[in-house]
Amino acid sequence: METFAESLDTPSVVIDMDLVRANIRRFQAYADASGFKVRPHIKTHKLPLVTDMQLAAGAIGITCQKVSEAEAMVAGSPAVTDVLITYNIVGAKKLARLVALARKVRLSVVADSADVVDGLSAAFAGEASPLATLVECDTGANRCGVGAPEDAAALARKIAAAPGLVFGGLMTYPPAGGEAAVQAFMSEAKALIEADGLTVPVITSGGTPTMMRAAEAPVVTEYRPGTYVYNDRSLVMRGACGWDDCALTVLATVVSVPADDRAIIDAGSKTLTSDLFGLTGYGHVLGRDDLAIDQLSEEHGRMVSTGPTGLKVGDRLRIVPNHACVVTNMVDEVYLYSAEEPTPRAAQVVARGRIW
Amino acid sequence: METFAESLDTPSVVIDMDLVRANIRRFQAYADASGFKVRPHIKTHKLPLVTDMQLAAGAIGITCQKVSEAEAMVAGSPAVTDVLITYNIVGAKKLARLVALARKVRLSVVADSADVVDGLSAAFAGEASPLATLVECDTGANRCGVGAPEDAAALARKIAAAPGLVFGGLMTYPPAGGEAAVQAFMSEAKALIEADGLTVPVITSGGTPTMMRAAEAPVVTEYRPGTYVYNDRSLVMRGACGWDDCALTVLATVVSVPADDRAIIDAGSKTLTSDLFGLTGYGHVLGRDDLAIDQLSEEHGRMVSTGPTGLKVGDRLRIVPNHACVVTNMVDEVYLYSAEEPTPRAAQVVARGRIW
Repeated sequence: METFAESLDTPSVVIDMDLVRANIRRFQAYADASGFKVRPHIKTHKLPLVTDMQLAAGAIGITCQKVSEAEAMVAGSPAVTDVLITYNIVGAKKLARLVALARKVRLSVVADSADVVDGLSAAFAGEASPLATLVECDTGANRCGVGAPEDAAALARKIAAAPGLVFGGLMTYPPAGGEAAVQAFMSEAKALIEADGLTVPVITSGGTPTMMRAAEAPVVTEYRPGTYVYNDRSLVMRGACGWDDCALTVLATVVSVPADDRAIIDAGSKTLTSDLFGLTGYGHVLGRDDLAIDQLSEEHGRMVSTGPTGLKVGDRLRIVPNHACVVTNMVDEVYLYSAEEPTPRAAQVVARGRIW
Repeated sequence: METFAESLDTPSVVIDMDLVRANIRRFQAYADASGFKVRPHIKTHKLPLVTDMQLAAGAIGITCQKVSEAEAMVAGSPAVTDVLITYNIVGAKKLARLVALARKVRLSVVADSADVVDGLSAAFAGEASPLATLVECDTGANRCGVGAPEDAAALARKIAAAPGLVFGGLMTYPPAGGEAAVQAFMSEAKALIEADGLTVPVITSGGTPTMMRAAEAPVVTEYRPGTYVYNDRSLVMRGACGWDDCALTVLATVVSVPADDRAIIDAGSKTLTSDLFGLTGYGHVLGRDDLAIDQLSEEHGRMVSTGPTGLKVGDRLRIVPNHACVVTNMVDEVYLYSAEEPTPRAAQVVARGRIW
């Protein structure tokens, strides 16, 4: 922390790369032992160098949510050669970019409706290689996805018959703890699709909160965790990890101590974000269980305590945010350090703000 | 909207510049009639060209929260010659930047403690011109600020005696509807400070929600509204404006219609943000009072209705976000249009992500 105080202004997002490495290895080892593949979601870090660590550890490719994120990661690392975009790609501009990207890497995408399949097919009909298209299935999260195995089978048939496309398998973003639902839905959909004479090359699920139970849905062939590289307060509160596993923290400075039991830090919603994720308060101050961050405005974080905080202007604190992924999207740079390189070095968050 | 559909991808943040102009004029006219000055907070737009409109309409300068924001605005517009930073500036790196900035423009800053004053004084003691330093007062918002008029007077004396500084007046970020509290606190503090033989050149208050009642605290000499240029759902819900006054909207595309009463748009928390601002839901879909945006993930906005939505994949919608300021901080570019220039043109959000 002394080094940080000398070299970094605040607020800054700092990353313990030793913890990143340990977090990556732990899940890869579990996946290897359980017999499924890992395809990490890059939304958490948006950094080619962390992607490279994930691929080196054994990941088979990456997951992105948007075409523009995938473009940034492909441009940022030659090791990125296999990308799954887990999003319905809609509209001429995005489809044109998708075609260009598919000429560079092994690309897969998802669809949950005939409309989306028609758009993909029209864009790829003239391409030399067909686009692997997976059916997104709603296994209980109530977001996107077809709602029943029969619907998945019908859309798989449509994809298989569509010019420019090839059926790529099944994808879901499961509800937390939804392994049984995933297993049931995917097993039934797979059987229906295979009865149609198609093969289901990939069944992909994801989500860090219950990733260490992924093997309870053995029909799944690959898993797409995101937050596991950094961890965050939401995962600690759900029992998925401890504070010592949290690689991403926000370094902040106390700028005001207007009362004994209240202090203001220079990290507000522009850094920590307003994501509550079902929790109370906006982050955990490491080493200070007595403090609650009870209110954020854009540049102010208000900390309150039941007794005197003992803080003074200029004190530095490290905060584990509620949700790591959204924090990295707020900043142009994060600062990486490790036991070997204790002085933080800047890394540009190349896929930050890629909303297209 | 047809033009938008042709020229813009989604999600995009679009700004109706005719409404921006009308919003600026309305508040400036009220201020002129009431006899106080306007010093807009640039955090809402972070755009030099909107600053120029505010200054041309009669604003006396700008308000920034961070030194880095001020640097971006000064670099972006030669018209920016008078800046108030309403934040305790703490730490050697920020103080060095503050000194450099003070050599370029007429700069004022705030302090709410002896520690902050000592830091400013040490940084400016060798400068040719003293730094105007205002005392930040807590008139009920319970964030930063001295808590009593006597404390304001004591800190004013300290500033006046500090090498490199000159006492610049009083500043507050009031609680919503706190005009009476502002009037009482500031009147008493002013009398105490004047009794010490000091003058109080500026008393500055701010906040869009009750800005049209600013004249109810006549001791205030200048006001610092931010959100008024764009307006947003929080202001509509508080009765401060109507939907027709909302200049900033998020253009989004329906990407999934998994059920009759549910549809998913491509604007999630990476565009709309998780700011609830005391409201239920994450924005208002223009022209669709029946829809509620009940859940956001990073790239998905879930809309629900009590009946069939009638939406289909590819439909475009415009959303008034809960909080305009935080939305502009999410995007590298916004798109400006007007009756004269109906085709949106990109404007870089130059002060986006400036957290230092």
